[in-house]
Amino acid sequence: MVKQALVVLGQSRNSGLSSFEAGPDRDMIRVGLRGTRHLCNFLHIFHFYPFTVVHQLHINLNTTIASTTLISSPCNHKARSSPGNWNSIAETLSTFTTTVMENSGDHQEMVVPPVEGVAGGGTAYGWSDTGVNDPRPLRGAIDPTKVPSLELLNVWCMPNTANVGPQDMPRELESISLLAARNERESIQIAISPKVSWGGSGIAGTVQVQCTDLCSPCGARFVTTHVLSFVHTYLGYDVKLLILFMVKLLMILVGCRLAIGQSLTLRRVVPVLGIPDALVPLDMPVCQLNLFPGETTVIWVSIDVPIEQTPGQYEGEIIISASKAEAESTNQSLSKLEKHQLYRELRDCLDTVEPLEGKPLEEVVERVKSATSSLRRVLLSPLFSDFFSDNGPIDMMEEDAISSLSIRLKISLTVWDFVLPATPSVPAVIGISDTVIEDRFGVEHGSNEWFELLDQHFKWLLQYRISPYFCRWGNGMRVLTYTSPWPADHPKSDEYFSDPRLAAYAVPNGPIVPCGDTAKDYLRREVEILRTKNHWRKAYFYLWDEPLNIEQYTSLRRMASDIHAYAPDARILTTYYCGPSDAPLSTNNFEAFLKVPAFLRPHTQIYCTSEWVIGNREDLAKDIIAEIQTENGEEWWTYVCLGPGDPHPNWHLGMRGTQHRAVMWRVWKEGGTGFLYWGANCYEKATVPSAEIKFRRGLPPGDGVLFYPGQVFSSSQQPVASLRLERLLSGLQDIEYLKLYASRYGRDESLNLLEKTGMYLGPERYTLEHRPIDVMRGEVYRTCQS
Amino acid sequence: MVKQALVVLGQSRNSGLSSFEAGPDRDMIRVGLRGTRHLCNFLHIFHFYPFTVVHQLHINLNTTIASTTLISSPCNHKARSSPGNWNSIAETLSTFTTTVMENSGDHQEMVVPPVEGVAGGGTAYGWSDTGVNDPRPLRGAIDPTKVPSLELLNVWCMPNTANVGPQDMPRELESISLLAARNERESIQIAISPKVSWGGSGIAGTVQVQCTDLCSPCGARFVTTHVLSFVHTYLGYDVKLLILFMVKLLMILVGCRLAIGQSLTLRRVVPVLGIPDALVPLDMPVCQLNLFPGETTVIWVSIDVPIEQTPGQYEGEIIISASKAEAESTNQSLSKLEKHQLYRELRDCLDTVEPLEGKPLEEVVERVKSATSSLRRVLLSPLFSDFFSDNGPIDMMEEDAISSLSIRLKISLTVWDFVLPATPSVPAVIGISDTVIEDRFGVEHGSNEWFELLDQHFKWLLQYRISPYFCRWGNGMRVLTYTSPWPADHPKSDEYFSDPRLAAYAVPNGPIVPCGDTAKDYLRREVEILRTKNHWRKAYFYLWDEPLNIEQYTSLRRMASDIHAYAPDARILTTYYCGPSDAPLSTNNFEAFLKVPAFLRPHTQIYCTSEWVIGNREDLAKDIIAEIQTENGEEWWTYVCLGPGDPHPNWHLGMRGTQHRAVMWRVWKEGGTGFLYWGANCYEKATVPSAEIKFRRGLPPGDGVLFYPGQVFSSSQQPVASLRLERLLSGLQDIEYLKLYASRYGRDESLNLLEKTGMYLGPERYTLEHRPIDVMRGEVYRTCQS
Repeated sequence: MVKQALVVLGQSRNSGLSSFEAGPDRDMIRVGLRGTRHLCNFLHIFHFYPFTVVHQLHINLNTTIASTTLISSPCNHKARSSPGNWNSIAETLSTFTTTVMENSGDHQEMVVPPVEGVAGGGTAYGWSDTGVNDPRPLRGAIDPTKVPSLELLNVWCMPNTANVGPQDMPRELESISLLAARNERESIQIAISPKVSWGGSGIAGTVQVQCTDLCSPCGARFVTTHVLSFVHTYLGYDVKLLILFMVKLLMILVGCRLAIGQSLTLRRVVPVLGIPDALVPLDMPVCQLNLFPGETTVIWVSIDVPIEQTPGQYEGEIIISASKAEAESTNQSLSKLEKHQLYRELRDCLDTVEPLEGKPLEEVVERVKSATSSLRRVLLSPLFSDFFSDNGPIDMMEEDAISSLSIRLKISLTVWDFVLPATPSVPAVIGISDTVIEDRFGVEHGSNEWFELLDQHFKWLLQYRISPYFCRWGNGMRVLTYTSPWPADHPKSDEYFSDPRLAAYAVPNGPIVPCGDTAKDYLRREVEILRTKNHWRKAYFYLWDEPLNIEQYTSLRRMASDIHAYAPDARILTTYYCGPSDAPLSTNNFEAFLKVPAFLRPHTQIYCTSEWVIGNREDLAKDIIAEIQTENGEEWWTYVCLGPGDPHPNWHLGMRGTQHRAVMWRVWKEGGTGFLYWGANCYEKATVPSAEIKFRRGLPPGDGVLFYPGQVFSSSQQPVASLRLERLLSGLQDIEYLKLYASRYGRDESLNLLEKTGMYLGPERYTLEHRPIDVMRGEVYRTCQS
Repeated sequence: MVKQALVVLGQSRNSGLSSFEAGPDRDMIRVGLRGTRHLCNFLHIFHFYPFTVVHQLHINLNTTIASTTLISSPCNHKARSSPGNWNSIAETLSTFTTTVMENSGDHQEMVVPPVEGVAGGGTAYGWSDTGVNDPRPLRGAIDPTKVPSLELLNVWCMPNTANVGPQDMPRELESISLLAARNERESIQIAISPKVSWGGSGIAGTVQVQCTDLCSPCGARFVTTHVLSFVHTYLGYDVKLLILFMVKLLMILVGCRLAIGQSLTLRRVVPVLGIPDALVPLDMPVCQLNLFPGETTVIWVSIDVPIEQTPGQYEGEIIISASKAEAESTNQSLSKLEKHQLYRELRDCLDTVEPLEGKPLEEVVERVKSATSSLRRVLLSPLFSDFFSDNGPIDMMEEDAISSLSIRLKISLTVWDFVLPATPSVPAVIGISDTVIEDRFGVEHGSNEWFELLDQHFKWLLQYRISPYFCRWGNGMRVLTYTSPWPADHPKSDEYFSDPRLAAYAVPNGPIVPCGDTAKDYLRREVEILRTKNHWRKAYFYLWDEPLNIEQYTSLRRMASDIHAYAPDARILTTYYCGPSDAPLSTNNFEAFLKVPAFLRPHTQIYCTSEWVIGNREDLAKDIIAEIQTENGEEWWTYVCLGPGDPHPNWHLGMRGTQHRAVMWRVWKEGGTGFLYWGANCYEKATVPSAEIKFRRGLPPGDGVLFYPGQVFSSSQQPVASLRLERLLSGLQDIEYLKLYASRYGRDESLNLLEKTGMYLGPERYTLEHRPIDVMRGEVYRTCQS
């Protein structure tokens, strides 16, 4: 009786519509009802109307769908459907709809709301809304300073592997509970969308976001309270402020507090090509955000647990308050100049008192005196005159401009007694194109500004457990790579190479900046210096990118010979995905690929192969490893770039969050001992730092780009990280968890843990949801805690 | 040799990537290269890599695609793919890829850029950019007041049927050339995206958009120039300003100028659920917009040609200038109060001098004197002190704050000598839910505020060639409809019903606001009054929405009888899509549907049927018409609501622009004499005017919503139109063009015109592009001009 099939592109914030998606298990399609938990607004309802029962079937369809399984964001549907999927989608759909038709009488007992407008009439009006809305209705004009913010805003949390875009739908607000090791970064997302508009022209409204430090209730908090009550009662006003500040400072020094702006950072998630990716820093500890009608704004909260942090429970709050837009021009937003001055003065205070250990008592007293006098000056400056209100200093310091109407989002953090090693267990070497820096920032190769910019890039990327190398491409795929732009005898090179966070560094086989020496002389001198150093074990030479024919392989061999002549123990890294095309090593492509180590030996020590070669056949990894002579110091590393594509793990824009993070899970499972990525800043050419970001022609978006120039998004010079870079870091941290677990229970058990949590089973079988990651981490915490 | 298939979700602003789409001709898929003309950023590249020739094939693929046909925005791809299409997409894709594979050797002569990063290396860097970028490279920090705006911005134009979203890609900037009749609205879109960021925190930058009046070069412009040169030379400063203003005023009165803010309006296109839909008014004649990194901002420019406008050529400019964000706080943005005061004063001046025709000379002189003295006061007020610069009054008035660096976009408009009838030829009656107004604006039924709000809604919608009716739903699908909330003898009712723009009005069959009368008494009195009026021919009674069973049909008959007892010539309108389900009129559903007129007669005069019933079988329309006794004054009207769905014409969000507009083309082709739509404001319940817009559960987004409360987007009380409402208006205007053509050449020729231009051939065969619409209009202009 199916007379006509309609597909309606639907949306509903609080209603039971359905969505579908093809998962990486390609022959499956899941269709589901969304209740209060919505992941996306584009819901597809499949209405199959028998001609005369349009109303009934419409209703039945909705209720029937309710009984099937729920999945996740069809926003990424386009990104994730490969043509191979379509046939199966279409097939499964017809199976699905048949089932719906057959089951359509099953749920008659459910009360279904009449819907005004279905076929032109009726009324759903007043039908109770079971969503996340507050029951108290607002009326009339809205003054955000007089209404609980929860009536004006939807606020909800999402894990860091979720891609939360402007069209994402609100969920229930739940408090945040996190686990992190020392020297680990853990992140969470907070999404905000307006329920009403109160902001006037063009925006829905302004919100103020503030976060407190995270405090351990262990004792410091207790002390603070008592000190404060004393202070409050007996001491004069400015002295109170002063002591309060000193207590804060003390707690940070003592390790009972994770301070905002140092350990805690807030960034706004900005879509790139419509996909959430750029993380633009927000002012701390208070910032203002404009919300737009119908749009979800997302804040990325990161906690960096210092290596010396005391393990234990920490608690803090993120406080979100709807505010009047006018507040922007009042004391809340200081001018850039004022802000910078304030920052400098406070930093100077801190520098004065820190570090104190090992210093004689007299000096400590002197220093604290000096710092407090600076602080008094700052705190009594006109800048803070607005805060001299009746509420007393506690409220002021802790919660300036926050009222009882604010939304308070509790953050609870467990810091456990495991220290992520300063040096990453698996080196992740990642390229930074010096050419891009030269063009975009308009600096001349070798100039002072050039060195400064390279230094900035190096230091910034080093935060991400990455070992950067600079690179420029020559003829064919010859590549000049170097981790330090300075010669080996320059103090900066030693500083770079000795940094414990750097796991590997590239040594150039010639001068970077022209000097008197020939390439050979330069190389010999560099190697002579470096071989004497402790960090020489981190050194590698990356000379050619993917040699393709005999000529290229021969060049590579010659270059490697020259290096080995000066340093027989030098490690040559070579990337490849096939043997020489003009003299096949075998009639079978994969066989030829497998024979490359034998063909290149001894001119390469680090055999770095494309993950794309393996495809979904993990067993091939064993064949590759079998060819590597680890007993002779040879290593197997891998890389991703243009390929592999979806559904395999990679860092392309538009892939899933877990797919980004799984790049490193894959490395752990396959057993590679290092990883290479060709570029972190390889956008299309531009000659202005703030030029719009274009991805390079022929490359999938995001490929070769892991961060953006800060100038594109604000007046800041600091690079802006991508979500994908954060997930790379998370993946590297996951490896440390797995390594800890393996150190206790063996490598096989660590793979077993990946499998039983459902986190990672293979390049096409890994979790799409966040939960298994937390389960894995929780299990490592539980079993390795003591 | 195809070893692995990759689908890469790609993007590239100026590169040769490809996209695909399934058109309404379902067995077709078009794949193409985008060169300088980009419609969307989500481009899908299909890389089929034979294992060993990854580089070569990648390149060949790109060049091969270059030779196939180009299409349009895959942004809407998701919206437009119905499951039925997927099979054919998958099929066609495999055909396509086979072709690509076969042709991959064909274009070896083309020089292909090496791509840095393909498989990890290479360098495309410095490869010349053939896109829309300015050749002069910017360097260093950017001061927008010192750089040509074209170096900072992409600006391009799009037709009104395009859905241009935040992710749309720049095109070439072309000047605008429009055709419009008198009493017609014609619209165009201007898209702007930043090439660089210069705005500081969170935004890419601020642009100022200003437009000039459109002037006919016929003579007024000539006069102005000469008068001005005289004025400039001989007269004092304030007198110059004054005369200049009077000349402007004169030109408007004389009909040689289309004035900004009156005939010319600018609105910002704001996405709803990520799809461009809401049109939020911009300040006139100058406004400032914030651009965001990587986002396209769209301005909707509408020109309303007054009924008395002199035909001819009009020219004007839209001037776009990148500006410093600080400008917002200077004189450019007046306070609301200042603005309102200024507006009132200027309006008073205009009211004083207008209308002058038929007035004795003395009075005219008196009036002009009075107006000029008001004007002098205004122009010399401190508000304009900034304008008292050295540039002289001409520049000030015409182009304040515009420099030679601005982007000047020429608009040329041909107003032709055809007047769209004040009363639409095909009545489009559209519902406004009074319940929604009561809840959302917190007004009590029947209160003064209630009457005011209904009045506002009525007048606002009337601008769209729509005949509004208010409605509320009762038990079953009984519906109370009324065009005027006042009784028939109230002056407002007469004002409403006599308005020439109103083509039809609904008469309630009982009191709207409780009064002493019984429903019957009230009805009789109303009818008695209305029957004496000239506008009685516009009256109709809409009593029941889609009766489904005998009981409902019987109720409807009884109600109709009561009305006909008082007024035998009263027109009853009934919507339906089937016969009574409990007493089938035939064993065949469509047969039963066809028999409804015979079954209902004489209790219905306007048989209003769902377009969904017809599906894609237009021939059924003839069967329906055959059942209607037009000789007895019976009419056939149609409606759309939940159905029909894609690809048929309807007003759902996410459908194509031409699909929205085609609703009315369909009416013309099928021969209906009226059209009904159930709701223009039927969003989900809310109790605050500025509450976020939610579409009702179970309905496709946009269904029942043609405009939004202004408060959601700004502090304005005025409703905010949807793009879909504008397209509805355009469709109604198209009907007038077609009717004019039919009046000269016959109805069949008008259908022939639709067919030969490719504009509309049937509910699944209409243009997806804008051009055929312009061709149709141009043809009517050419052939009916004299």
